[in-house]
Amino acid sequence: MDSSTPSAIPDTLIKSKTERGREQLKETKIRIGVLASGRGSNLQAIIDACKDGYIPGEVVCVISDKADAFALERARREGIPAIFLDPTKYESREEYDGRLVEILNEHKVDLVCLAGYMRILTPRFIDAFRNRIMNIHPALIPAFCGKGMYGLRVHKAVLDFGVKVTGCTVHFVTEEVDLGPIIIQIPVMVREDDTPESLSERVLKREHRAYPRAIKLFAEGRLQIEGRRVRILPPNK
Amino acid sequence: MDSSTPSAIPDTLIKSKTERGREQLKETKIRIGVLASGRGSNLQAIIDACKDGYIPGEVVCVISDKADAFALERARREGIPAIFLDPTKYESREEYDGRLVEILNEHKVDLVCLAGYMRILTPRFIDAFRNRIMNIHPALIPAFCGKGMYGLRVHKAVLDFGVKVTGCTVHFVTEEVDLGPIIIQIPVMVREDDTPESLSERVLKREHRAYPRAIKLFAEGRLQIEGRRVRILPPNK
Repeated sequence: MDSSTPSAIPDTLIKSKTERGREQLKETKIRIGVLASGRGSNLQAIIDACKDGYIPGEVVCVISDKADAFALERARREGIPAIFLDPTKYESREEYDGRLVEILNEHKVDLVCLAGYMRILTPRFIDAFRNRIMNIHPALIPAFCGKGMYGLRVHKAVLDFGVKVTGCTVHFVTEEVDLGPIIIQIPVMVREDDTPESLSERVLKREHRAYPRAIKLFAEGRLQIEGRRVRILPPNK
Repeated sequence: MDSSTPSAIPDTLIKSKTERGREQLKETKIRIGVLASGRGSNLQAIIDACKDGYIPGEVVCVISDKADAFALERARREGIPAIFLDPTKYESREEYDGRLVEILNEHKVDLVCLAGYMRILTPRFIDAFRNRIMNIHPALIPAFCGKGMYGLRVHKAVLDFGVKVTGCTVHFVTEEVDLGPIIIQIPVMVREDDTPESLSERVLKREHRAYPRAIKLFAEGRLQIEGRRVRILPPNK
């Protein structure tokens, strides 16, 4: 990987901040767009972390491909624009993702967070938000990830394989499913009596810490991608 | 995986103990044979854990495929039979492993521990000590294991991939390299400034805890294989 030209995420951020006025630089919060297909517990953790000031940012829109996703209901309760974008109304994934990009840009989104979003993003989307899309996965990537590995299936695979340590991973999204540069991982010990459900519950608690932490680091300009590695810079650098 | 017929390791052990006299059951120590190709730091951790009584067992022989393996020197210093078995003297891996089995049986070995042993065992060997061979791997299996993954190469791959959590794994040895049922895993956090060397050093410290712990559980009859999973039974069961 090319470490001589590190792709510093902060640059992108500083640029968009500058457009909104340099004098506001310190107070400017990053604008987060969340894509979710399910109940949105990670969305809630992100909203809460913004509200209590842990993340210098705010969730400015929540978009779902499912009309009945509880994530949309959570957004509405918080007064956040909640948008259902119906996949059946678009002829291709490219068209759908094109509309997604438009909506996110209309809301001046700096960072896109996938929170249980069940559609694979097209290269067009990934390119539009290069190095500004995060995802969370309920296992320690590169183990138990990739095609078909989502939700309880992940934890079932973990138990069937018999590993004693699993965890969660927050990573940047690239064209390869689940294999973008890793920002944070938190380990979770598997217990003798674990079921996919009990394990899922314990890992989820860690997800709710890991995701806000990763977003906070992004918002503070402390994430620097070098090849596959994400370096976490010290505070105030 | 057939969980209806759990393969209980203790049975094997109890049988061999019974042969040596039932009245001695409680005091009987398991007899450990170690195969090593290198410096043998895990061998030393096992020897020390036997000497201080943590493992109810003793290392009764150390065998190496390298004449100059420091592991052999460690064995000699401890008064343990140290055997160099020269691979060039055997026409096939099967013959070599056949002789290995003979030597281990001559020493009445209950458990074979691989400690940096660089040869892949033949099915003949694995069958002779079915569910009684352990190995340690310096990563969290199933990540960063398999062909070509040994020593510093493992830690280099971990850093190149950019994971934030790695660790070590003690597992039973089956025909599939590095993929036998997992007994213990200990996570290790990757640091920003880690090199393969610094990471190796930190993981090795965990290996020196994990390996004696796994052997202790085996010696106490507390490991039960069910399909791919190893259940750790409560004490005194």
